Amino acid sequence: MEATSDISEVHLRVNYSEVDQMGAGYHARYLVWLDLARTEHLRRTGVSYAELERRGFRLAVGEARVRYRQPARYDDPIRVRCWLRERASRRLTFGYAVEHAEDGRLLATGETSMMVLDADFRWSRLPPEVANRLPVSPDPVRI
Amino acid sequence: MEATSDISEVHLRVNYSEVDQMGAGYHARYLVWLDLARTEHLRRTGVSYAELERRGFRLAVGEARVRYRQPARYDDPIRVRCWLRERASRRLTFGYAVEHAEDGRLLATGETSMMVLDADFRWSRLPPEVANRLPVSPDPVRI
Amino acid sequence: MEATSDISEVHLRVNYSEVDQMGAGYHARYLVWLDLARTEHLRRTGVSYAELERRGFRLAVGEARVRYRQPARYDDPIRVRCWLRERASRRLTFGYAVEHAEDGRLLATGETSMMVLDADFRWSRLPPEVANRLPVSPDPVRI
Amino acid sequence: MEATSDISEVHLRVNYSEVDQMGAGYHARYLVWLDLARTEHLRRTGVSYAELERRGFRLAVGEARVRYRQPARYDDPIRVRCWLRERASRRLTFGYAVEHAEDGRLLATGETSMMVLDADFRWSRLPPEVANRLPVSPDPVRI
Repeated sequence: MEATSDISEVHLRVNYSEVDQMGAGYHARYLVWLDLARTEHLRRTGVSYAELERRGFRLAVGEARVRYRQPARYDDPIRVRCWLRERASRRLTFGYAVEHAEDGRLLATGETSMMVLDADFRWSRLPPEVANRLPVSPDPVRI
Repeated sequence: MEATSDISEVHLRVNYSEVDQMGAGYHARYLVWLDLARTEHLRRTGVSYAELERRGFRLAVGEARVRYRQPARYDDPIRVRCWLRERASRRLTFGYAVEHAEDGRLLATGETSMMVLDADFRWSRLPPEVANRLPVSPDPVRI
Repeated sequence: MEATSDISEVHLRVNYSEVDQMGAGYHARYLVWLDLARTEHLRRTGVSYAELERRGFRLAVGEARVRYRQPARYDDPIRVRCWLRERASRRLTFGYAVEHAEDGRLLATGETSMMVLDADFRWSRLPPEVANRLPVSPDPVRI
Repeated sequence: MEATSDISEVHLRVNYSEVDQMGAGYHARYLVWLDLARTEHLRRTGVSYAELERRGFRLAVGEARVRYRQPARYDDPIRVRCWLRERASRRLTFGYAVEHAEDGRLLATGETSMMVLDADFRWSRLPPEVANRLPVSPDPVRI
């Protein structure tokens, strides 16, 4: 069974709805950008998060942390990279880098730790065919 | 069975997350404000929307319309009034006025038409004890 | 001066943050999807909305209307089409179709009318080189 | 000059727009709830954040961290408590507890560290009459 690529990336543009009156991306939106990247990272295992839910699994955020380094501006092209930092039987920790897609500036880094639950919100474990296709990657940037 | 008050109101303050770089409330957020007011209007029947869902009913938005008249600004105190405009067996149409809570300026008006569905998203009807407690009100402002 | 293509489209996937506990896209999010499509439609003129703002113009939503036809589900691939319905000197009316990107089902239609303002929120007119590159299109679907 | 109360609290109800298809408050929304509480905590100094911005100050989020302990459910009444954890000349660190307003269960805790900037996003210091009215409080719960 071949591992998927260790680091995923998604691209987006900062939309008007996401910018505050400082002209900067509102900080809570970054957690949604991380979600977009995590969703695509999971999809690469061949089992999307939507499919995991249909099979009775839940990945619930247990902890989230973001460091905001430079503001994202309206209409900026953004790249969000996502990788798995740590894998325990019932917990997955993802790392993220939010970067300006053109000049490469690091705008933010983050980490979310996800609890593996069943449909009744009890602790569970990912199916092995999914877990095995989620390789842990060293951090490409300092988080 | 006594009718509830014909027009409800909720109060909120425009939060930083809701303001765009024009310094005005982002237009999509108004639909959330209308939702807050509609939720409280329904609660006055004695059966909250949460309880309606537990009983197997859904009110799904079929159409929404908002007219933006004056911008809401960051930290403005806002009053949202909500009333029932029309009641059909399977459809409820609510009207809304978004006003500055201190100076009373009309900032926006809106209308949403809600389809009464069951838990499987088929057409349904509200329980009579709820429907009977939702009086239709004349519009307090022009929508 | 060549006209841009009359209808733009953007693609997105319904993210977890956008889905409510009915498992359907929350209705206010559709206005953000329309904004994403309108932003790309404007970009095709060669002058992005970001650039218009830097030149002192504002397009503020005067009225928005959405008809919800079928629910968008979590992780659904979505296509949003946008076109100009009407152009007056100080007002642009855009039409939108929200469709399932794979099976083509029409999920929602919408319209927003945008007021052309200057940086002080007074009525203004678009620069002719922009206005001339925004052709009015017949509706591709009934709104 | 009298200190304001050391811990502020705001009350809200979980709105439909905030709940995901697990039936739980979507994790990014908690950052907005923290913002609501921080805004009210600042207001107690007699100088609201809106007024601080008018005077040329910015409080930009440098780091945010949330621990999600129990899910908030649709329509749950929520209390968010906010206090100042640390005060440096150019940085304020706030702590937060998100609790069920009726049964008191601790749903989440969080921390945000805010950078004091001027209108050009350079490091700055809060005016003393504001800083002096923001007492540091011991954590009322473990963060």
